[in-house]
Amino acid sequence: VVVEPQRYEYGPELIPATADSGEGMWRWRGLLPVDGSGMYPLKVGGTPLVASRRLRQQLGAPGLVLKDETRTPTGSNKDRATALCLVDAASRGATAIACASSGNVACSLAAGAAAMGLAAYIFVSARTVSPAKVDFMRSFGATVFLVDGPYERAYRLCDDACERFDWYNRNTATNPLALQAKKTVAFEVWEQLGRKMPDVVYLPVGDGVTLAAYVHGCEELIRCGVADRLPRVVGVQASGAAPLVRTFEAGCAAWEAETTRTIADGIDVGDPYFGRQALDAVARTGGSWVAVTDDDLRTAMATLARTSGLLAEPAGAAALAGVIAHREQITAPDQTVVALVSGTGLKDQRWLPREGGRSVDIAASLEGVERALWGT
Amino acid sequence: VVVEPQRYEYGPELIPATADSGEGMWRWRGLLPVDGSGMYPLKVGGTPLVASRRLRQQLGAPGLVLKDETRTPTGSNKDRATALCLVDAASRGATAIACASSGNVACSLAAGAAAMGLAAYIFVSARTVSPAKVDFMRSFGATVFLVDGPYERAYRLCDDACERFDWYNRNTATNPLALQAKKTVAFEVWEQLGRKMPDVVYLPVGDGVTLAAYVHGCEELIRCGVADRLPRVVGVQASGAAPLVRTFEAGCAAWEAETTRTIADGIDVGDPYFGRQALDAVARTGGSWVAVTDDDLRTAMATLARTSGLLAEPAGAAALAGVIAHREQITAPDQTVVALVSGTGLKDQRWLPREGGRSVDIAASLEGVERALWGT
Repeated sequence: VVVEPQRYEYGPELIPATADSGEGMWRWRGLLPVDGSGMYPLKVGGTPLVASRRLRQQLGAPGLVLKDETRTPTGSNKDRATALCLVDAASRGATAIACASSGNVACSLAAGAAAMGLAAYIFVSARTVSPAKVDFMRSFGATVFLVDGPYERAYRLCDDACERFDWYNRNTATNPLALQAKKTVAFEVWEQLGRKMPDVVYLPVGDGVTLAAYVHGCEELIRCGVADRLPRVVGVQASGAAPLVRTFEAGCAAWEAETTRTIADGIDVGDPYFGRQALDAVARTGGSWVAVTDDDLRTAMATLARTSGLLAEPAGAAALAGVIAHREQITAPDQTVVALVSGTGLKDQRWLPREGGRSVDIAASLEGVERALWGT
Repeated sequence: VVVEPQRYEYGPELIPATADSGEGMWRWRGLLPVDGSGMYPLKVGGTPLVASRRLRQQLGAPGLVLKDETRTPTGSNKDRATALCLVDAASRGATAIACASSGNVACSLAAGAAAMGLAAYIFVSARTVSPAKVDFMRSFGATVFLVDGPYERAYRLCDDACERFDWYNRNTATNPLALQAKKTVAFEVWEQLGRKMPDVVYLPVGDGVTLAAYVHGCEELIRCGVADRLPRVVGVQASGAAPLVRTFEAGCAAWEAETTRTIADGIDVGDPYFGRQALDAVARTGGSWVAVTDDDLRTAMATLARTSGLLAEPAGAAALAGVIAHREQITAPDQTVVALVSGTGLKDQRWLPREGGRSVDIAASLEGVERALWGT
């Protein structure tokens, strides 16, 4: 399957004029290559922009907002690309669809393919995939190949298998529809801010498609004549999988593929397929890059849960970890700072910040409660 | 804390005239005792009504729709009651809030209390609570009392502790706001069906508040003059915790408290606190009751995941299990049948229908894929 890059006759008339009454992502049909409304059974897009008073206070960041992509069908921003690709696949008569994934793309594809009635073939790295996520993929009826090798090897094998077996290829950096779908996050943030661009946007980076798509979406808003500047975009990687951060810091043109090590399986990519585009996109915005350690990720997850009631996986909290790393720079009250919360913490329970609370066995009596509270 | 039952001056002007542009549950402020818009940081309500083509085909139920309450802040319909109670608690100056819970109420309260800045004290049965759910409660910073006794004992102890320690009481059958919040599900379904009442509604029943609230909501729509009949409501219990089903079938006025045994921890209640109200509510609609086995629940979870891309926990799939039990009765094309999917399967991974799919270790080669596919 070859999908041509999409061009549009840009203008303000492509922007939806009315509020979201349940259509979600498909409201942006003027800027999408396929309109899936009425075809795709799960609601995708229209996720909340959360202004957490307590998080703002704790970080001293009065203009911070969270784009909460945990509120999607399977709890990650990957559901947007899955929806667009599946509608395209179905309209082309495909009966099987495949992807490589660090985990969330695959959970998303397994669910969406089940809802659309396509077979799903999934390629993951046996070394880094979360076992819980494999169980979710299987629950939706997918066939999961646990490939002996890193994510990049699973990715290439998936591309080859799609060629060989004529499966529709949803691979995030191979299928241009992934970029087209994920740019709707930028549209929604702009709209939710009262049709204004934010000043700074923090985004997690694995393959780089989420970031490149965000910047592409902002550029399309400018081309449509409804915005006049880009936000500064900050790419956030886990320090154990940070080839693009190192490239940026060294001022180099290219990166070396890395052997990775991080708890953030969602961005555990040592040789990003969209790395070039992500580096270029950040540069066009005058933005920067930052690496965050696994401890930073744990702190961000705990902070998010304890101040905002949102549970993110490590990769899902990476953007906030980047914000925390830069907290000295985002204290201006008139500065709007967005952090993308890209994936829910419900799926993989290994990394829950459970030490933030307390559970205690008690006898069924008020005395039991008092003893637990005050040790008396 | 004593909350008076709420009365309204019923009329069509209490129904919101415009579409949901992100307000969710608070759109129904005309029929709510407290308006939390602008106060409650998480988006609650406005969940999708899903018409799954593949599920309809598989069950031969052309008018079946799913109200997907997994799409809430913490993945269950409990988030509605939590939101209303927390806004009320904060407006009364409370600094601590407590609940007893079979699991989902507590996850919901832990998250909401963190977002609002209140301390959360949670009472669960050490015998039946899902360990994963306790980890989620702790992740949000809650104090969890694992009470030596069944849910009902934890519930009574929570009521006593709220009295003793002056904690705001969110208990689902004690605080009338729970009913007020949960009725908004009925409002949304009516609106999403084009301002029409469904014909039959299947609802899971533990304590009975979800069901009683649904019927109460329908009755308020009639009082407002925008609907002229009730749907028939079917209460679904797990056969290992089915006191109300047995009461209905025996034609008795009251039930005996039961010792329970079911995988559906969300409705694992042997002596329902809102049982009387739930029985009366079903009777007013001319509805009925049905019990489903743990095997029925597993089948419903697998069917939901494989046909619709939705993952429910056992209690969350109970209503659909009831639909499946009654499938002979819901084949009319003009009959609109609603099943509430009340809780996500993401939290508790013990019951995932993982046997529906397949995962296989392969070498990183096309030959590895072929061997896995065809054994060659």
